[in-house]
Order: sequence, then C-alpha cells, then structure tokens
Amino acid sequence: MKYAVIGVGGVGGYYGGKIAHAGQEVCFLLHSDYNYVCEHGLQVNSCKGGFLVKPVLAYQNPAHLPVCDVVLVALKTVKNGRLPDLLSHVVGPDTLVVLIQNGLGMEEDLQAVMPDLQIAAATAFICSAKTGPGVVSHMDYGSLTIANYSCRDQSKIDALVAELNAAGIETNEAEYKLARWRKAVWNMPFNGMTVALNTSTNALLANSHTRALIREQMLEVISAAKACGVEGLEPSFADQMIAMTDAMTPYRPSMKLDYDYGRPMEIDYLYTRPISMAAAAGYEMRQLKMLEAELRFLS
Amino acid sequence: MKYAVIGVGGVGGYYGGKIAHAGQEVCFLLHSDYNYVCEHGLQVNSCKGGFLVKPVLAYQNPAHLPVCDVVLVALKTVKNGRLPDLLSHVVGPDTLVVLIQNGLGMEEDLQAVMPDLQIAAATAFICSAKTGPGVVSHMDYGSLTIANYSCRDQSKIDALVAELNAAGIETNEAEYKLARWRKAVWNMPFNGMTVALNTSTNALLANSHTRALIREQMLEVISAAKACGVEGLEPSFADQMIAMTDAMTPYRPSMKLDYDYGRPMEIDYLYTRPISMAAAAGYEMRQLKMLEAELRFLS
Repeated sequence: MKYAVIGVGGVGGYYGGKIAHAGQEVCFLLHSDYNYVCEHGLQVNSCKGGFLVKPVLAYQNPAHLPVCDVVLVALKTVKNGRLPDLLSHVVGPDTLVVLIQNGLGMEEDLQAVMPDLQIAAATAFICSAKTGPGVVSHMDYGSLTIANYSCRDQSKIDALVAELNAAGIETNEAEYKLARWRKAVWNMPFNGMTVALNTSTNALLANSHTRALIREQMLEVISAAKACGVEGLEPSFADQMIAMTDAMTPYRPSMKLDYDYGRPMEIDYLYTRPISMAAAAGYEMRQLKMLEAELRFLS
Repeated sequence: MKYAVIGVGGVGGYYGGKIAHAGQEVCFLLHSDYNYVCEHGLQVNSCKGGFLVKPVLAYQNPAHLPVCDVVLVALKTVKNGRLPDLLSHVVGPDTLVVLIQNGLGMEEDLQAVMPDLQIAAATAFICSAKTGPGVVSHMDYGSLTIANYSCRDQSKIDALVAELNAAGIETNEAEYKLARWRKAVWNMPFNGMTVALNTSTNALLANSHTRALIREQMLEVISAAKACGVEGLEPSFADQMIAMTDAMTPYRPSMKLDYDYGRPMEIDYLYTRPISMAAAAGYEMRQLKMLEAELRFLS
C-alpha cells in the first residue's frame, strides 16, 4: 500500500519512518524540515535500533501529494481545522485516513466536514519526540491500536494492521469507542496534572495524595466511558494503568512538553470534548472539569 | 473584662490593639517581638486611622499570664497542638476562649483535650498583616462574627459582642456551624486556588473558566454544609461571595501568603477536616478533595 504521513513529529516520524524502512512507499508532508530531509534523509534514533530513511519521498505542498491508500495523520489536534485542506489531494475514494491523535471527538468533527471520508482512529503507546530537523528520538514502547470509525472496507484495516506488524510496529485492533476512552484513562489525569502541578508522572505517583487523586480521576474517566456506552472498561484498569506508569521511565507527557515549549495545549479534544460527551450522557466529570479549568487558566 | 491575645499577627494584633486602644486591659503573648513591643509599643496602621498602643501589657511566657475573662486565639491552626500549654495559666473557670481562626473542627479538637474549657468560634472578615516587629497593617474591612460553641454563660458572649462593638470592631453573633461553614464558602476555593495556580483572587475571577470553577467549588461547600445539617446557607450565597470578591481590592488570601513565605499551610482544618466531615455525612466534595491533594503535593 502507498502511505502518506501528515504531521512528521515524534509520532508521525517514527511510524512513517518504520514503514518506509520496511520498504513501503511513504510520502512525508514536511514544512520547516523539508530542505534538510531532502538532503540528509529522516533519521530515527530508536531504543530498538536506529536507522536512516534516505531518500525520503518529501512533499512541501499538500496539493502535490499523490492519492494514497493510507494517510497517517499525526498532527496535534489543535491543527485539525486544517485537515480538509491538507487531505484534499491525498485522499481518493478508497483512501483510509488514520488519526493517530489523543483525545475524543476528532473523527466525528472531521467526518462532519468530509462526509465520505473513510476514517480510522489510532492510539499510540510510545515515548518519542522530534529532537532536531529530520531527527526523531524514540525512547520507549511503540505499539499502536487501530480502530475502525467509518472505513467501509474492513479488510483494508486488517491489511493495514498486518503491514504495520510486518514493519515491526506492534499493532492490534480494538473497538472504536473503547480504544479512544481507554487511552483517555491515562491521558486525562497525567497530561493535565503534570502541567497543573508543573511536575512529572513519577512525582505525582510518589506522593500519596496525588497518587490517590490520579486514581480517582482515572475512575472518573472509566465512569464517563461507561455512561457513554463503552463496554469492557473496568475500574481495575485504573490500577493497571498506575502499575504500568510506576514501571515506566519518568517522562513528560505530550501536553507537558507543549506547555513547557509554549505551544498550544490540546485542551479541546483531551478535556472539553470528553467532559461534554459524559455530561450529555448524564455523568459529570467533576475533577477533570476542574483540571480543564486550571489548564485554561494556565494556557 | 480583662483580655489576653495569643497569636499577635495581622489578626490578633489588630483586634487586640483595637480593644486596648479603647481602654480595655489586654495582655499580649509575644515571642520574637517581645523586646521591640516593650520598648516601642504596638503600632496599628489602619485604613480607618492608625494608632499606637503603648505601654503594652506584654508577656513572653504563657505561664506568667494572669487569668483573663476572654482569651482571643489568633494563632495559625497549624500551631493548635500547643494550645493546651499556652492556655493552661490564662484560663480560669469563667474564662471564655475565642478561636479567631479559619477552618472547621478546631473547637472540637480543643474541647477533646480540655473538656471544661468554654469556647467560642470567631470568623474575621479582614485584610490585615503583620508587616514588621510590633507593626500591624490593616488594609480593609475588619468585622467579626462570634458563635458560641461551649460557653455555659451566653450573657458573657453578649457582653463580649457589646464590648467589641464599643471598641470600634463591627461584631455580630451567629450560630456556630453556620458561621464556620459560611466562612468556608469563601475560604476553601480562594485560599487553595490562589496557591494551586499561583495567582490572585481577581485573576481567578477574571478568567471565565476559573470563575465558573470557583463558583462550583463554593456550591460544593454549600452542599457539604447542608449535608452536615447547616441550615440557612443557600446556593445564592455563592453568587454573593463572588460579587463581594469582585468588589474587593485584589489581595492574597492567608494561605497564599503562607505559601509564598514558605510557612506551613493550614490544609488540615481548611480542607481535610471539612472534607471528611462532609464524607461522614454522605457528601463527597470532589473538587475540593482534588484541591486538597494539589496543596499536599505543593506543601
């Protein structure tokens, strides 16, 4: 299959790089790094072994992209308003657009403006960052979960999952709402709390008070998911997420990096949208609503 | 009546100074300021007109205090563990001890260790601070609300209220639980939130998100009070408090001052205790519990 990557940062650069390194055709849409990458290629420094993609099928103008089979979107959601323009040429009738993004509601919003688009959601469990022009550093993990949102041909998703696994990306499939809400169980507490208290995941878990608070907030997400009709997300998942985070190398979640570097935070899709979805379903996420207000104040 | 003041800071210094300035006998228990105050007196710089109390009935040793009719305790509650020692000589069988403090549960704890003590609660609506040795700056307001907790002679409280009013301190009386919870409606949101977001009351109200959050937290206190059997505290009181704060000169609540100066914060009586009282009565203060955890993390 022919791929395009829109949003070539720590996530898009890593997954796109892996697929290209496995020999697939991958078109990268680049801005500021375009000249550098054309000349030097895309370097992926990975804890699992680094590699250089060169030459890179680099594009500067989204209108010049060819129609692809799969478009991986790894933009920050604050830029999602640009997606209809960015996708207008790369998408054909059979193209699958995969949103590798954090939050809830992105697929619904994109579908509303592009009703025929075939969309899948993806959640990435990865620690990686762009550390220089054309350089991605992959620190840990790297698995993907793909969920069909509006793809009319399920075999296409199955084929994508198989190709990603073949490219060395551990990929599984999940039900759409379960995948998005399950990711939110970790994302909503840790992204915001590291910003609100200007700290790290491990410091939050080392303090008994904030450790209990993180757990309560996770349970709030699980309750919200249940109110929204998600099945199979049990309270015990909060304890699993905390145990997993205890075992992780301490790192700054993406929102903390955004805050520290003065970039806009993804408050809309990470907080406002799930909170309002839960409210519409009759459940009030009181602590995460408070966290949202704190983040709005700090932004 | 003969008075003693324990805790001669912005609050104790102001009220004790006013009573002494009105001609009453007031014994001040002093530590570091003792020598300065013996020599120079106690200076009250007040927005309502300043004055100097000199000579001052100054004491360094609580065991040397005479038995008084009224003891005003204006210590930070983090020091309440010392009260049995501090009160052991100044209290006689007819002495009334008035706790001019923020929080809930202080009277109950003191009574548990001094079962015969006659206690009243007081809430101060005042902006004042100790700004130097023997110098109190009174910026705004100054009224007191007194509530009987375990005084066996109600006429003593009535007499105290009359004397305070005669000394130029606007003083009224209220039911005990109502007085303490009503104060908590302002205290719990603003003290903690100015610390958590490192900001001021007016900045919190100028941002629409935190303004709504402060109101929600106030409603949480009002719901908690209702669960604890308090009558007469309506949701509309939250809007009154917000309107009042809009009209106030922006200032740093006492917990923010404590935090900024590296002093211990009054988290136990201002947060932990009311939250557990409400929980025991079946109401969960979810947002204020979150704020408590944030403050514990920051302390």
